[in-house]
Amino acid sequence: MINDKNIKTLNFRTDLADERRDIFKKANNIENDIEGIESEENIISKYLKTTKVKILNENASKSLGKPVGNYITIDMKKLKTASEEQIQEAAENLSKELKELIDLHSSKEDPILIVGLGNESVTPDALGPKVTKEIDVTRHILTYMPQYLEPGTRSVSAIAPGVLGTTGIETLEILKGIVDNIKPKLLIVIDALASRSIERISSTIQISDTGIVPGAGVGNTRKDLSKETLGIPVIALGIPTVVETAVLVNDCLDLFIEKLQNEAKSNEYLNELKQKDNYEEIKESLVPNEYNLIVTPKEIDELILNMTSVVARGINFAIN
Amino acid sequence: MINDKNIKTLNFRTDLADERRDIFKKANNIENDIEGIESEENIISKYLKTTKVKILNENASKSLGKPVGNYITIDMKKLKTASEEQIQEAAENLSKELKELIDLHSSKEDPILIVGLGNESVTPDALGPKVTKEIDVTRHILTYMPQYLEPGTRSVSAIAPGVLGTTGIETLEILKGIVDNIKPKLLIVIDALASRSIERISSTIQISDTGIVPGAGVGNTRKDLSKETLGIPVIALGIPTVVETAVLVNDCLDLFIEKLQNEAKSNEYLNELKQKDNYEEIKESLVPNEYNLIVTPKEIDELILNMTSVVARGINFAIN
Amino acid sequence: MINDKNIKTLNFRTDLADERRDIFKKANNIENDIEGIESEENIISKYLKTTKVKILNENASKSLGKPVGNYITIDMKKLKTASEEQIQEAAENLSKELKELIDLHSSKEDPILIVGLGNESVTPDALGPKVTKEIDVTRHILTYMPQYLEPGTRSVSAIAPGVLGTTGIETLEILKGIVDNIKPKLLIVIDALASRSIERISSTIQISDTGIVPGAGVGNTRKDLSKETLGIPVIALGIPTVVETAVLVNDCLDLFIEKLQNEAKSNEYLNELKQKDNYEEIKESLVPNEYNLIVTPKEIDELILNMTSVVARGINFAIN
Amino acid sequence: MINDKNIKTLNFRTDLADERRDIFKKANNIENDIEGIESEENIISKYLKTTKVKILNENASKSLGKPVGNYITIDMKKLKTASEEQIQEAAENLSKELKELIDLHSSKEDPILIVGLGNESVTPDALGPKVTKEIDVTRHILTYMPQYLEPGTRSVSAIAPGVLGTTGIETLEILKGIVDNIKPKLLIVIDALASRSIERISSTIQISDTGIVPGAGVGNTRKDLSKETLGIPVIALGIPTVVETAVLVNDCLDLFIEKLQNEAKSNEYLNELKQKDNYEEIKESLVPNEYNLIVTPKEIDELILNMTSVVARGINFAIN
Repeated sequence: MINDKNIKTLNFRTDLADERRDIFKKANNIENDIEGIESEENIISKYLKTTKVKILNENASKSLGKPVGNYITIDMKKLKTASEEQIQEAAENLSKELKELIDLHSSKEDPILIVGLGNESVTPDALGPKVTKEIDVTRHILTYMPQYLEPGTRSVSAIAPGVLGTTGIETLEILKGIVDNIKPKLLIVIDALASRSIERISSTIQISDTGIVPGAGVGNTRKDLSKETLGIPVIALGIPTVVETAVLVNDCLDLFIEKLQNEAKSNEYLNELKQKDNYEEIKESLVPNEYNLIVTPKEIDELILNMTSVVARGINFAIN
Repeated sequence: MINDKNIKTLNFRTDLADERRDIFKKANNIENDIEGIESEENIISKYLKTTKVKILNENASKSLGKPVGNYITIDMKKLKTASEEQIQEAAENLSKELKELIDLHSSKEDPILIVGLGNESVTPDALGPKVTKEIDVTRHILTYMPQYLEPGTRSVSAIAPGVLGTTGIETLEILKGIVDNIKPKLLIVIDALASRSIERISSTIQISDTGIVPGAGVGNTRKDLSKETLGIPVIALGIPTVVETAVLVNDCLDLFIEKLQNEAKSNEYLNELKQKDNYEEIKESLVPNEYNLIVTPKEIDELILNMTSVVARGINFAIN
Repeated sequence: MINDKNIKTLNFRTDLADERRDIFKKANNIENDIEGIESEENIISKYLKTTKVKILNENASKSLGKPVGNYITIDMKKLKTASEEQIQEAAENLSKELKELIDLHSSKEDPILIVGLGNESVTPDALGPKVTKEIDVTRHILTYMPQYLEPGTRSVSAIAPGVLGTTGIETLEILKGIVDNIKPKLLIVIDALASRSIERISSTIQISDTGIVPGAGVGNTRKDLSKETLGIPVIALGIPTVVETAVLVNDCLDLFIEKLQNEAKSNEYLNELKQKDNYEEIKESLVPNEYNLIVTPKEIDELILNMTSVVARGINFAIN
Repeated sequence: MINDKNIKTLNFRTDLADERRDIFKKANNIENDIEGIESEENIISKYLKTTKVKILNENASKSLGKPVGNYITIDMKKLKTASEEQIQEAAENLSKELKELIDLHSSKEDPILIVGLGNESVTPDALGPKVTKEIDVTRHILTYMPQYLEPGTRSVSAIAPGVLGTTGIETLEILKGIVDNIKPKLLIVIDALASRSIERISSTIQISDTGIVPGAGVGNTRKDLSKETLGIPVIALGIPTVVETAVLVNDCLDLFIEKLQNEAKSNEYLNELKQKDNYEEIKESLVPNEYNLIVTPKEIDELILNMTSVVARGINFAIN
């Protein structure tokens, strides 16, 4: 069993339930499944893998610091140089998983609002707004020219509300007003996530039905978007697009200390160092105050472009 | 006095009160001021001119097809190659006129919401969203870190709600929700306008305190944003960014027929005209020297994108 | 037969051999084929048409103002909303025609240099540089890592030399130096062209084996790139991307005078025409349904940039 | 005195002569100036500092792995949020230093060619091409319309030759052809540099008169551009725009080991670790093969924009 003290000191620095489960197991020396958490891994193809994590009760929720609900992680390999076929395969896979969650939380014709979070002017934060533009919206056609659509077409609308730093308005405040006015029955939110793994940058999608905290991926957390705050179910598509430099260096130091311990030098001091979370110290010493340093692949532009195609197609297939 | 029949047939194809007044006077052979309309022109400097049109009553409002209120047109010369100083001078002039209207409709500390209309992905429709990004928003700092601001700082927020075609939601519906939620006391809206004059493209600003119809400048009119629909005063900054081709040719034909009527009308003359290459003459009269005018589809960027794919693939297939 | 006087006064204002032939025939009242010119039209599919014009002798060359050689025009319909399949079909068609001309002028393994003319910062002039980036270049791999390529791979290199206004150097001077140094056996040049037809904007490709005059499409002609000036064959891919406003109005006036001549010419009729609002009629006849045509200065991006500064500063000064 | 063995093992991973001198002194425990190297530091203002390093002889050249010549480093503070005045001050300072080097290597009217290296599509590599566009070129005006220029105006041309990966042609090959053809007397090259310091990203300019190795800043070194290879003097403006992740982590580990040693745990093993260059190991373990990971500030776009203004103005002031 896990006591509260341990949970408090565990700082995951990742929003992926998948990674959190691994970190938690390692930190607590757990070999098998954690009580209250169900996991399942599927290799779909050479380039595609799906991991499903179900958080079943409050205890498990506290352990991972994530609400009770479904978390599906889709990992794509070599997305940077993906062919048209790979992109299509990934989009179809995303669509299948997404459709299951949509059907779980809404009826076939319930109106949906798609929300792309992030700042379009900052490359690694632009995915949400970019996806929004590719969504096949129908709400205005249903209103003004319904004769052009098949009967039973779902009402779809889409918005990119911008970020607090340029609007001065909390994302929740903007969305609350719009939801009250146009009354969708389900929200699908796309946002950047924090991850610990460089390989996952713009190559992984986490789908969850537990809402989202905007800006988590870029280190500025805001009021959460969820059924509690908005009154309708919120499905989130989170994509890691950057890794914080201090996280990277911290991970590297941990590996390094481990190496020191394994090879010869185990001693109390090193143990102590390892226990300590050096993140803040590293952050302070390495990172000049005025900058937000991020680690990205040089090919981030192409990655974002391909990921936009995957996510936009995946959503369009799933909702129509 | 102007009868209703005339007014109905007058199709202005410009949103500038200044141009409408001129068209109306010409169409009705009015020499002096129109009853119910006050005008005033000021030469500010070599590069700057201001024209103020006040529509005072319903009769005049019907004549120009514009609500009762204030319309200030600022014309800037040579903005394309403007120096830092010219830009600053124009900004200060705009600021002065805008401040007067703001003070007329709100108190010093009343919260303001700035709204940039238009589609950032379409160059001539991107002005509104681009301006929004440059606004010094304070609302979030007042909420979270008021100690960093001087006492009495006005709350400013800014949003670019997107366009109906990509959101599926009327601009009015989006703004209504936000206004209800964050309760500003004044709206300042920036949008593209229709104008008849090529020289005014992106070189003229019309400030008015009578609201705005989104998308007027690009031919897709929507529900208007005004005190009637939003419950708070709406100051609009409208900037012409395109001229419709059919308007241009229509104007040109009118000039041409006038010339035929004035000069002579024999069949021979027409024959002669037809033989003659009028290109240079037209070029001279229509096209201000400093610009290279081009006719493009609004969708030129997408066209270029698709054509790039065709040509690049075509060459790659052919040479390998 | 065509006398020189007529030829001199014929100002085509199009670089498409296809359009020039039509204009020439009309101007000279020729019903059948022009002596020395062979033409052939092929409907490839619902969206694709090919027209081949062969200029066989000097007389015909003078008539059309184009060198002796091959001119293939590929017209694509609805490229703006083209599906992946249409783009692929068009690319394959282009590839087939291009391959024939390449094989006519070079051997299978002869090194090729691809040249993308134009200014990437000006949307309608950016096609050449954009294509260059998508070319699969092999020359550096053949030099440094030949083991990664199949034996017999053709050496391909690609360059976008920029435009005279920003480099201060004639395109011919830049290319001459590079051709002398890296010694390709064939040049493929991509550039914007002038056309008279709005429907052809970014929807037509002219392939020719007679070289090219850079900048013809945007009204700034330069020294030509051809076998004479560079010493190797030059295949040109020309794509119309803009129509000049004065050309458009001139064409429209010609149509209008024709109409006057055909229908009636009384002063009353002209008066009536003047009263009438011809806008809808002009709009219908000039503007293909699928496009929103706009007249903009070529410098619209800079204008928008400067205007953004003016408005943003103006608002910021006014509200703070 | 420094022996060759030491020099060989010193891997600087920076192109700044200033940083190399410091690393060399530290590695060899030198307190005072190195023989054959002259240094001078000037605080210009609150935001500006200049460091001049002169490498005087072959021995010193070997020590720092840099050719004999002049290296001037200009450090700018807070460039991200620089005001118009700060940008102007920095540009004037750059201009002064640059002018001195230009006068040292050319006469007042000698034609100059400006070369912007890098890939404009990759944000941190786009500085060179961006600066090129802002240069006031005169060569074409001197050729075609000399009457518009004052007598004695220097001939200035500018080119952005692209990168090997997209052209297939070595930068040296492209430039050799152009230099042979248009015969400038001096080359000014702008490129990205490698630096070890995050604070210097897009905030430092190194001016040198010893040529440049293209792509050094982004880890792909090519044939050098210098008087030896091009036949005319080459002044280089190098600007650090990224820091490699492995360099960052390596530096961090060094600091960490130092801390271990200082505080309690000095022992042979740690000493050994410190001696060892862990770079390759870190690079291998941290960085997936397919990516080039880079550390950039999130604000890199604004930094590049302001730096482009400083460099373009600095050059324009210096050469005209």
